[in-house]
Amino acid sequence: MVYFENVNKIGYEGATSTNPLAFKFYNPKEKINGKTMEEFLRFGVAYWHTFTQDLSDPFGAGTAIRPWDKFTGMDQAKARVEAAFEFFEKLGVKYFCFHDVDIAPEGATLRETNKNLDDIVAMIKDYMKDSDVQLLWNTANNFTHPRFVHGAASSSHADVFAYAAAKVKKGLEIGKELGGENYVFWGGREGYETLLNTDLKLEQDNLARFFQMAVNYAKEINFDAQFLIEPKPKEPTTHQYDFDSQSAHAFLLNYGLQDQFKLNIEANHATLAGHTFEHELRYARINGILGSVDANQGDPLLGWDTDEFPTDLYSTTLAMYEIIKNGGLGKGGLNFDAKVRRGSFEPVDLFHAHIAGMDSFTIGYKAAAKIAEDQVFERILTDRYSTFSKGIGLAIVNDKTNFKQLEEHVLDLKDIKLKSGRLEVIKATINQYLLQVTAAK
Amino acid sequence: MVYFENVNKIGYEGATSTNPLAFKFYNPKEKINGKTMEEFLRFGVAYWHTFTQDLSDPFGAGTAIRPWDKFTGMDQAKARVEAAFEFFEKLGVKYFCFHDVDIAPEGATLRETNKNLDDIVAMIKDYMKDSDVQLLWNTANNFTHPRFVHGAASSSHADVFAYAAAKVKKGLEIGKELGGENYVFWGGREGYETLLNTDLKLEQDNLARFFQMAVNYAKEINFDAQFLIEPKPKEPTTHQYDFDSQSAHAFLLNYGLQDQFKLNIEANHATLAGHTFEHELRYARINGILGSVDANQGDPLLGWDTDEFPTDLYSTTLAMYEIIKNGGLGKGGLNFDAKVRRGSFEPVDLFHAHIAGMDSFTIGYKAAAKIAEDQVFERILTDRYSTFSKGIGLAIVNDKTNFKQLEEHVLDLKDIKLKSGRLEVIKATINQYLLQVTAAK
Amino acid sequence: MVYFENVNKIGYEGATSTNPLAFKFYNPKEKINGKTMEEFLRFGVAYWHTFTQDLSDPFGAGTAIRPWDKFTGMDQAKARVEAAFEFFEKLGVKYFCFHDVDIAPEGATLRETNKNLDDIVAMIKDYMKDSDVQLLWNTANNFTHPRFVHGAASSSHADVFAYAAAKVKKGLEIGKELGGENYVFWGGREGYETLLNTDLKLEQDNLARFFQMAVNYAKEINFDAQFLIEPKPKEPTTHQYDFDSQSAHAFLLNYGLQDQFKLNIEANHATLAGHTFEHELRYARINGILGSVDANQGDPLLGWDTDEFPTDLYSTTLAMYEIIKNGGLGKGGLNFDAKVRRGSFEPVDLFHAHIAGMDSFTIGYKAAAKIAEDQVFERILTDRYSTFSKGIGLAIVNDKTNFKQLEEHVLDLKDIKLKSGRLEVIKATINQYLLQVTAAK
Amino acid sequence: MVYFENVNKIGYEGATSTNPLAFKFYNPKEKINGKTMEEFLRFGVAYWHTFTQDLSDPFGAGTAIRPWDKFTGMDQAKARVEAAFEFFEKLGVKYFCFHDVDIAPEGATLRETNKNLDDIVAMIKDYMKDSDVQLLWNTANNFTHPRFVHGAASSSHADVFAYAAAKVKKGLEIGKELGGENYVFWGGREGYETLLNTDLKLEQDNLARFFQMAVNYAKEINFDAQFLIEPKPKEPTTHQYDFDSQSAHAFLLNYGLQDQFKLNIEANHATLAGHTFEHELRYARINGILGSVDANQGDPLLGWDTDEFPTDLYSTTLAMYEIIKNGGLGKGGLNFDAKVRRGSFEPVDLFHAHIAGMDSFTIGYKAAAKIAEDQVFERILTDRYSTFSKGIGLAIVNDKTNFKQLEEHVLDLKDIKLKSGRLEVIKATINQYLLQVTAAK
Repeated sequence: MVYFENVNKIGYEGATSTNPLAFKFYNPKEKINGKTMEEFLRFGVAYWHTFTQDLSDPFGAGTAIRPWDKFTGMDQAKARVEAAFEFFEKLGVKYFCFHDVDIAPEGATLRETNKNLDDIVAMIKDYMKDSDVQLLWNTANNFTHPRFVHGAASSSHADVFAYAAAKVKKGLEIGKELGGENYVFWGGREGYETLLNTDLKLEQDNLARFFQMAVNYAKEINFDAQFLIEPKPKEPTTHQYDFDSQSAHAFLLNYGLQDQFKLNIEANHATLAGHTFEHELRYARINGILGSVDANQGDPLLGWDTDEFPTDLYSTTLAMYEIIKNGGLGKGGLNFDAKVRRGSFEPVDLFHAHIAGMDSFTIGYKAAAKIAEDQVFERILTDRYSTFSKGIGLAIVNDKTNFKQLEEHVLDLKDIKLKSGRLEVIKATINQYLLQVTAAK
Repeated sequence: MVYFENVNKIGYEGATSTNPLAFKFYNPKEKINGKTMEEFLRFGVAYWHTFTQDLSDPFGAGTAIRPWDKFTGMDQAKARVEAAFEFFEKLGVKYFCFHDVDIAPEGATLRETNKNLDDIVAMIKDYMKDSDVQLLWNTANNFTHPRFVHGAASSSHADVFAYAAAKVKKGLEIGKELGGENYVFWGGREGYETLLNTDLKLEQDNLARFFQMAVNYAKEINFDAQFLIEPKPKEPTTHQYDFDSQSAHAFLLNYGLQDQFKLNIEANHATLAGHTFEHELRYARINGILGSVDANQGDPLLGWDTDEFPTDLYSTTLAMYEIIKNGGLGKGGLNFDAKVRRGSFEPVDLFHAHIAGMDSFTIGYKAAAKIAEDQVFERILTDRYSTFSKGIGLAIVNDKTNFKQLEEHVLDLKDIKLKSGRLEVIKATINQYLLQVTAAK
Repeated sequence: MVYFENVNKIGYEGATSTNPLAFKFYNPKEKINGKTMEEFLRFGVAYWHTFTQDLSDPFGAGTAIRPWDKFTGMDQAKARVEAAFEFFEKLGVKYFCFHDVDIAPEGATLRETNKNLDDIVAMIKDYMKDSDVQLLWNTANNFTHPRFVHGAASSSHADVFAYAAAKVKKGLEIGKELGGENYVFWGGREGYETLLNTDLKLEQDNLARFFQMAVNYAKEINFDAQFLIEPKPKEPTTHQYDFDSQSAHAFLLNYGLQDQFKLNIEANHATLAGHTFEHELRYARINGILGSVDANQGDPLLGWDTDEFPTDLYSTTLAMYEIIKNGGLGKGGLNFDAKVRRGSFEPVDLFHAHIAGMDSFTIGYKAAAKIAEDQVFERILTDRYSTFSKGIGLAIVNDKTNFKQLEEHVLDLKDIKLKSGRLEVIKATINQYLLQVTAAK
Repeated sequence: MVYFENVNKIGYEGATSTNPLAFKFYNPKEKINGKTMEEFLRFGVAYWHTFTQDLSDPFGAGTAIRPWDKFTGMDQAKARVEAAFEFFEKLGVKYFCFHDVDIAPEGATLRETNKNLDDIVAMIKDYMKDSDVQLLWNTANNFTHPRFVHGAASSSHADVFAYAAAKVKKGLEIGKELGGENYVFWGGREGYETLLNTDLKLEQDNLARFFQMAVNYAKEINFDAQFLIEPKPKEPTTHQYDFDSQSAHAFLLNYGLQDQFKLNIEANHATLAGHTFEHELRYARINGILGSVDANQGDPLLGWDTDEFPTDLYSTTLAMYEIIKNGGLGKGGLNFDAKVRRGSFEPVDLFHAHIAGMDSFTIGYKAAAKIAEDQVFERILTDRYSTFSKGIGLAIVNDKTNFKQLEEHVLDLKDIKLKSGRLEVIKATINQYLLQVTAAK
């Protein structure tokens, strides 16, 4: 069956094309710095937003028109697999990501649920054989079912902890079966609604125990995926334990888990935490824990996760700059954890949206690559911090001085000659690099 | 005396220039739609941010290096006028704006203050004779002095109301003297810190009385400037009475002032009110009260007025689109109510920042002009609202129907065929128009 | 059938009781200022949150345990009516509010939907005969169904406008049938997701047309309820047209509807708009448009509508103060537009939550009544604005002066003697009044 | 000289007193749990807000009337010391805190500045001999002077790092001289305005080096004060490196400084970071890094640090609960890092405000002590987490299980019996405890 009628394989047509169903900038085989775009950008489709999301919101029922929704139960699950691989193929994307509940319906018991998963995983594995699509990561949805109302690994009830553990166990097995490159933990209910009935220490200790058991089990089954924690500050809970990149880092360091986990940074989660996307990426990068990216964007005037497809070129440029400086994302990728707007309810909008996102990251990549090539930021930093490469500055960074020497250095100092930070020039410069992306073609 | 050494008249060098002290996009004599850029864009320099601002913040002393600050009192005021006209000339900008206290120091009494103002106004008038620089607007600073601690026109003390009135009276006279095209009211202290000690009704009534007296006095002296209210939601007070464009509109309608006032919309004030810049412009435009613009930008992650120079091209494009649809700003203009960052403390940064802002609005203007020319949004709207041009829809917009007829129309209706809103495509389209600005040259 | 087993009629037990299923402060027949609490406080139960809400959130399925959910369709609807009246009776509350879809399921056509409504309305009317419970207000849900994805009265499709109109027509008929004292309009989809595909003027014009037709139809059927608009700034849409009380006022004034509508002010909506609850109440009060109240509270650290039951005594005290100064709410009341937390999923939590809310408003009422009796705020204001009761101040408020006279008054004035606003004392005073509520019993 | 005329020593008059210049609740010698209030509450006066703050804001000049401001330079500094000790004595407060620049003016060189400090420190030491007032903590102001525009320990210029170091060196010596119990680091400029010109790794490494040198120097001079880092998320910089308690913890763990530093938690900084005050306290407490408290409050609707005197009894109750569970604050205290409102500009307002704050914390303390005594929260937690005290739950917390066993436990599990979280009841309970504070006297 064909689920996306009237849509052919999306091709590259270049910036001047007016065809909305064509890439204007993303050209998978085009090379930048010796690597093709598809090798470096590693775009992924999020199964949940693309194949199971119905576009409901807290005040409205679902609007999405999805041809596979005429089926139910396992038939629907199988139709989704077919639609998914048709979509991957037509879009020309190489990676996908999923939660367990996205691909197969839950049964009356976990045993039944796992049976459903086994059937669908086998089907997916078959499809993967005939395609070059790979699993970027999978994860367990330990937040939707009512049993997780008080948390999963941080639940107030031990059986729920056990249930969550069993689901992750299955998730690790599935990841191994499908050759997943990463395994993600997003703690949707790992947080609290109120401190007033929460044992914060026990909940965080249990969360750490859970992560350690996951590490142990992956080792036991020889599953060598990169483990990723995905920070988010709030929503659905009032306070999520993995608030932002630095908080998640604190957690890892505090419980001795820092060598086993990296972070999966999401743009919209950064915004909700009061940070820029590039801040979260930079913090993770300089601390060696940048693992993967959930590529989307939020609305800074709204206080919830809008998960929009990324089209802000400032954001994609600065994100790609961090990724370039990181030497790429290694096993990670750019997963579109993004949903079409509630008003974009037609099947074809799924293509439009991914094209918009892929083109936007491509433009950002091109601008960032040129900025990196021209050493724009490096020159600024070299000049700005030059006093640390000699004299007292060098002594500081080499840990060769102390408060007494430093006091001597300044006790009679009259004037320190500082330079302007030139932020306005830098911002104008980024605009110029951006506007040259097309011109450069 | 030369205040900006090593800076010559800023020229247009085009997008490929690497000279930071040159316009890359703003070319004053270049025509778009039959008007030169300088005619349509009507850029203005804000005297306060450019000539009196010391770049202090609540946690730090001023950092700005300003050659005229070696003087004090009236000498400093005169040096500022000289520096200002040197700056206008070198930048090639045609308009400026000021508060009374920006141009002359306050005296021990209002009589002395007015004397100081008279001297400086005469000097400015002289300078204007030899230049084609004009006064976009002036205003009275009724917020800095401690006497305004409890408000100005909405003060709890009648003498303060009187003092504020007298300052506006003088402001109107100065505006007339210098040929100001507009007169602005920003109510920096017209609001409350707490409702707990505030007579909200009396304060708003008094504010309206104040505006009415200003209208009367302008008529009396035959000063025909456009009066403008500048909305801001909060800061310095907890609640400002002119919260946003629609609130200001309510105030005008409520007190019968809607024909005497238009709005001066500021980008950063929009953000603080939880709106986009373009929302505020659109609301004012469709209600016939779009008067002028304070061109700056804020940081959506910060909760205070950062007054940055505008460099966000999405914002400048959508703002210019509204201005084009408004048929221009009439007597209004694009005043850079923007300050260089605290770290950009060198005199030359004032040029860098204005160049960045003028280029950014030029890029936005070019993109918006092409979008308007291609009727991008018009086509979307025509298609989207097409049901209102016939049948029941036409009856609705012509006020020719009622609830009974409408009920009949839908009582047995099974299905309404709605179309996707295609937001992702629209956002990608804007990106394409933006990236073609340079290419089009 | 009994839906709330193990719950008897809730009685008043006073502040020292430890029984969580008892009022500690709310004593319906206790008089304050000559009126019983139940006469003045006019508490209402929100049908949707109490009888249809399943406590799902964007990341989780419903958790609520509701005995009537073992039924479906019209059986469920009827069971809800039974449960509702059992609840009203046991709680001892006199008013309720509902949307059309809360009480009866939608049919395949509006004709079928209306048939379902007729059946349930008849049943409700029967129940009302045997009880002294009254309808505070009803409304039409024109936001949940997918047809309203692009708006209702402000939809881009004329048929949707018609559909929304027909639903309100039926709502007015139902209101008349059940003796509703008010009729509410909350524009859940009257706003935009993006300006980029929105004809703002047409949408607002249509919204005004819709309101006018509603006014006309109510007159036609002699339904004399007070019409209420409920402001909300955002969510579900990015921008809601009735942003806050002053924006809604602008809309009414702009379209000549100010005599037909008052406002229904909700605490959490105030917070989302960047206002305090008391600000919204005050603005409405001094402009004669305070109609009714949706009594709940939000979490100021979260960016969405949490609709919590009100327990913040500062908020209830200041709200009740405004209501006292308004001479009560007239036809309006205090409707608990509030839902139990997702973690409070047991049926008995519905009682706990309403008791918490009713007690909190009672405490606020007692504190506010004493504050009003002692003229705490009046004394502050009389002293603070005393200069407006004589001399130049009196001339100002009597419109007997002008800028020239005011200038004369201050031209040589040296010093204006201002007084401290004493905010810290006022806040401490409110604390004292609050802490005396119990002591006073 | 007497600076606070007409103010006598503030006495305790109890809840029914109407004298605004009297404690209603704070009774220093009253014992709770065997300790006097003054022993446990350890209130401190902030020198900067009380003796140097002029109540200016970004849009207005200072309004504060301070009798010592008729002096200048060192005379003013000495007058401030006299006024301060008069204030401490009359208020009956036992601790104070200061920045170096609060107590003595800066000279042309650091040598001169240090000389000024020596003179004033000697004077303070003399005053302390005759009083039982002690130094809670001191700190160096490394943020106000223009030299810190690009940071202090994280400056882009090595000389500025050295200057900051020398100022802290002096600060440690002063702390030792005056017997300070703590030494505080608030990194007002340790952050960035923009990532675009920031070497994030170098800046954070340098900050850690700076802290290590401070630790080394304190050891060298045998100064055994507790070192405290004070988190703040933003303002004045766009991003502060010590964003919140968990971020600061990450920093300490990352650089091996966790045993040398605790945190100084400020209420308003918590709000700005998107947290409740009690969250920050709880996080610090359970991780053994709760050192001291800056007792103030913010306005959740405003995006900047308002530093209000604490009057919100919910906040003081929950804060005191954390402090009680921490066994008190040890060397730390409750420093009023709070300023009177700009409108509260009279000298006597300083007393009013401190009285309001001390009474509010006393009420919170009494409510929290009773809540702790009644084991309100302990009972809730014991019941809520009971499944972790036996069976599979006990195995989890004892690290005696793994994913395989956990899977077995749930594979055929049908139903997990969860209990309501009862948040509404808990909130009502807190209200009851609060309202009983006065009654209990």
